[in-house]
Amino acid sequence: MGYKYLDKERGSFQEIIPSSPSPRLRIMTTMSSSASSSHIDLTHHLSTETRLRKANPMKAIWRLTRRKADMISLANGDPHFTLYPIKKVQFEVASVDDKIVDPVQSWRGAGASAPSQSFTTTTHNGALPLKAAMQYSAGAGLPDTQRVATELTDYYHSPPNHVVTLTLGNGDGVAKCFRLLGEPGDHFLADEFSFSSLTNAPLSHGINWVPVKIDKGGLIPEDLERILSTWDEERQGRRPHVLYTVPCGQNPTGCTLSVERRKQIYALAQRYDFIIIEDDPYYYLQYDSMETEEDEDEPFKFMPSFLSMDVDGRVMRVDSLSKVMAPGMRLGWITSNALFHDALVTLVDSSTHHPHAFGQIFLTEMLSSSGWKLSGFDRWVRSLRKEYQRRRDYFLRLFYQEVARTGFASTNAPEAGMFVWMRIHLEKHPRFRADLQRTDGSQAKTNTEELMEELFERILDGGVVVMPASIFMTPGDSSKPEDNSSPVQDRLNYLRLTFAGEEDSMQLGLSKLGQTLKEFFADSKDD
Amino acid sequence: MGYKYLDKERGSFQEIIPSSPSPRLRIMTTMSSSASSSHIDLTHHLSTETRLRKANPMKAIWRLTRRKADMISLANGDPHFTLYPIKKVQFEVASVDDKIVDPVQSWRGAGASAPSQSFTTTTHNGALPLKAAMQYSAGAGLPDTQRVATELTDYYHSPPNHVVTLTLGNGDGVAKCFRLLGEPGDHFLADEFSFSSLTNAPLSHGINWVPVKIDKGGLIPEDLERILSTWDEERQGRRPHVLYTVPCGQNPTGCTLSVERRKQIYALAQRYDFIIIEDDPYYYLQYDSMETEEDEDEPFKFMPSFLSMDVDGRVMRVDSLSKVMAPGMRLGWITSNALFHDALVTLVDSSTHHPHAFGQIFLTEMLSSSGWKLSGFDRWVRSLRKEYQRRRDYFLRLFYQEVARTGFASTNAPEAGMFVWMRIHLEKHPRFRADLQRTDGSQAKTNTEELMEELFERILDGGVVVMPASIFMTPGDSSKPEDNSSPVQDRLNYLRLTFAGEEDSMQLGLSKLGQTLKEFFADSKDD
Repeated sequence: MGYKYLDKERGSFQEIIPSSPSPRLRIMTTMSSSASSSHIDLTHHLSTETRLRKANPMKAIWRLTRRKADMISLANGDPHFTLYPIKKVQFEVASVDDKIVDPVQSWRGAGASAPSQSFTTTTHNGALPLKAAMQYSAGAGLPDTQRVATELTDYYHSPPNHVVTLTLGNGDGVAKCFRLLGEPGDHFLADEFSFSSLTNAPLSHGINWVPVKIDKGGLIPEDLERILSTWDEERQGRRPHVLYTVPCGQNPTGCTLSVERRKQIYALAQRYDFIIIEDDPYYYLQYDSMETEEDEDEPFKFMPSFLSMDVDGRVMRVDSLSKVMAPGMRLGWITSNALFHDALVTLVDSSTHHPHAFGQIFLTEMLSSSGWKLSGFDRWVRSLRKEYQRRRDYFLRLFYQEVARTGFASTNAPEAGMFVWMRIHLEKHPRFRADLQRTDGSQAKTNTEELMEELFERILDGGVVVMPASIFMTPGDSSKPEDNSSPVQDRLNYLRLTFAGEEDSMQLGLSKLGQTLKEFFADSKDD
Repeated sequence: MGYKYLDKERGSFQEIIPSSPSPRLRIMTTMSSSASSSHIDLTHHLSTETRLRKANPMKAIWRLTRRKADMISLANGDPHFTLYPIKKVQFEVASVDDKIVDPVQSWRGAGASAPSQSFTTTTHNGALPLKAAMQYSAGAGLPDTQRVATELTDYYHSPPNHVVTLTLGNGDGVAKCFRLLGEPGDHFLADEFSFSSLTNAPLSHGINWVPVKIDKGGLIPEDLERILSTWDEERQGRRPHVLYTVPCGQNPTGCTLSVERRKQIYALAQRYDFIIIEDDPYYYLQYDSMETEEDEDEPFKFMPSFLSMDVDGRVMRVDSLSKVMAPGMRLGWITSNALFHDALVTLVDSSTHHPHAFGQIFLTEMLSSSGWKLSGFDRWVRSLRKEYQRRRDYFLRLFYQEVARTGFASTNAPEAGMFVWMRIHLEKHPRFRADLQRTDGSQAKTNTEELMEELFERILDGGVVVMPASIFMTPGDSSKPEDNSSPVQDRLNYLRLTFAGEEDSMQLGLSKLGQTLKEFFADSKDD
């Protein structure tokens, strides 16, 4: 039941025996995947650069060379595996044995004696032996790694008909989606506050952002619809055809989109023909609401993703291991329709080439029968989810006590992620002004921006680092203002805080923050 | 003597104690490197996209947060290191102990009992402890990894004044250089036969190639000068400002540029103001000539690189570990002037983000005092160099016996790399035509292309895979033909063979190849 696998970069062949063939398995090679798509035609969403990008010319030759089973290759500059100076790679990892009730707690608490197990890979043995893993390989990822990532995605999302392309982590995945779809001059949609490390990326290749308003439930479908339904292509250029969003524990606001909103947004995507880039690094870090008593008998239900409802193939889901394994992994994947997958692989072949072996070895070993298996991964992330929920609860209790009690700030309890979006009640500040007539071209009606800068400086002087909302403001296309009635500059009265850190930092940091707030709101004379 | 190190992606600080401070150490952070450059101003070589690309906006905040030593951070979504499920990573690698005369032979020959050593990294111990390595980190690479790569580059190349930026392997490095410098519509220079997996990459963003003629010594400086001195900007657009070349064991021709040619080319780069992308994966695989008896007392002298002579800062050298460690490493680096380094880091921050931890751990551990050290790496690559030289010699002996003796093919002994460029003596073929008057628009005067296609098919039918020259033909800008007197189509009578494979494959493959050649040259009736 093996199949031949073509090394796409330099063209060697390897025989692959799937270790656990599954009826749900949908591994596709670059060269055959488009054929099986049953999605609607979305070719027009690809950028000109993407459409011009030709597959590696050497692929044409490699394809020809499959005519016989026992071909002798004098073709490729592949170093022989006996010349790799590595013969064993071993990772000591947490045990997720069934007998351990809470794997994350056991791992953290017990120090050197914490129950552990090993993932061991040698030249010829392991879920992904070094002989194959360390050679040139496929842009989409090694077939076995692509398979385990597909099985994992199927388990949590059961997408209608999709293909997995490995990435070098979340940032790489999102940037590749932008490059794939973004035509210079295009407008993309995003939450009005978003993670600027990523929304910064496509600006230099001519993408403009259109910020969509948010409330405590995240992106507001009605505002999205307003933008799209009133879009004037003559005046504003091509209607936005891409939405970038973080549906769970959004960065920076911590918001999570409800199922209802997700459905509304997906329906808008269908009506107005846009692609949803679902960037979901906090998917596994979803929490019970603060009020609900957790039912230990009932396993926690993760929110359905955009991918899970994607009948058209218009969702590109970006998965990351940074928050549940470690950021240094730099390995994730994009799940998309087969057409976009093919285009992604051609982009990979023209940029980063195939993903690194060590990460693929780790991931494949972890999810294989000799490692944690998918069930063990699920135990780990559910245990981790509880750990972060405890941190959130700890943080919020402190927050109410040290900060909210001042009356000058408040927040909502986030249902996912790592962040608390703290609203500053600037309207209580003696120097707050709400009805400014600007002469400097700004549309802001308040002095929110100036006061928040002042507050941020004071917090820094107090020895605490937080993130100001201004840094997350999605850069709109100022030449084409959309809605002057409610400029985002008047909604900068927020700070992003994290509960991912240590208890000591939270305690000291929030205490200082409360103190600074009191001083700031008292000190009306300060100029 | 430690220094604070700023996590550039998400902004955490780490204290770094360099393990072996060196007077030659030139580690620079993204934010301070340009200041120290003494190179000439080369800003005009950066593409518009590169110049428009803004640094990650969050960096502005992180800079502000250094005002105190003991800041409490509530800022970043960094998972706490106690939540990484990994506490130890161990690599079993070849021993390069002084007592082992030939480390590669000892490693290959002895199977399970081959002398080995371990690189071991734990949460808090090792050259790059997991606590720091697995966290978000710097786009240029972790400081310690950047340091060892700098030391290695200094050791072999002693560049006048340069900075190292880590890459995700050779392909990623080259593609990033193209993206950094390439303006849509630009013309770049390359050997007329080049590695199409890489030269394919920038075509889709509007780069045109200008092929430079080669002979058995590689790229011909006089042809390069002809192109540049006769360039008509009015008719042809901006004069080429980038040369992409593989100076050692060029892929596909196996040619190595002599020191004299390197100097001539560098002088042309200065006179005509172009940048040299020195892609040098085969640097360590340089060989004695076939005639010279190796002098065991005198260590082999590596050819001086373009980087080593780069007083202006106009060389971007791309280093790779694929050929001396393993392709799956996917970790290398670019050495460039500080301005280009800064621009590269901003490109990294907008695309792939920081390099993967496992590869950085391996490289840092390997080159540190607990690993091989630089001296051990040097022992390994010199031993590997000899191993490939043996393979080359074995291959060539077989080639002369099985192929050259037919009188229908010949080759030069490559002085580096993995490839043999086999010339087919097509002029001896009964159906060869040398003075065609084409009606199909082709400039070719011979039927070389057609006959080579036929031969390639026959070789495949014979069960051998080789690479035809046509696949490596650098795609010229056909709308602006440069030199019609000698079209490259008449020089397609070459095949690329590799000696990187196993002896059995070489034996059987070359025997079959000789047989096919004899049949092909005999069979004049075949249509």
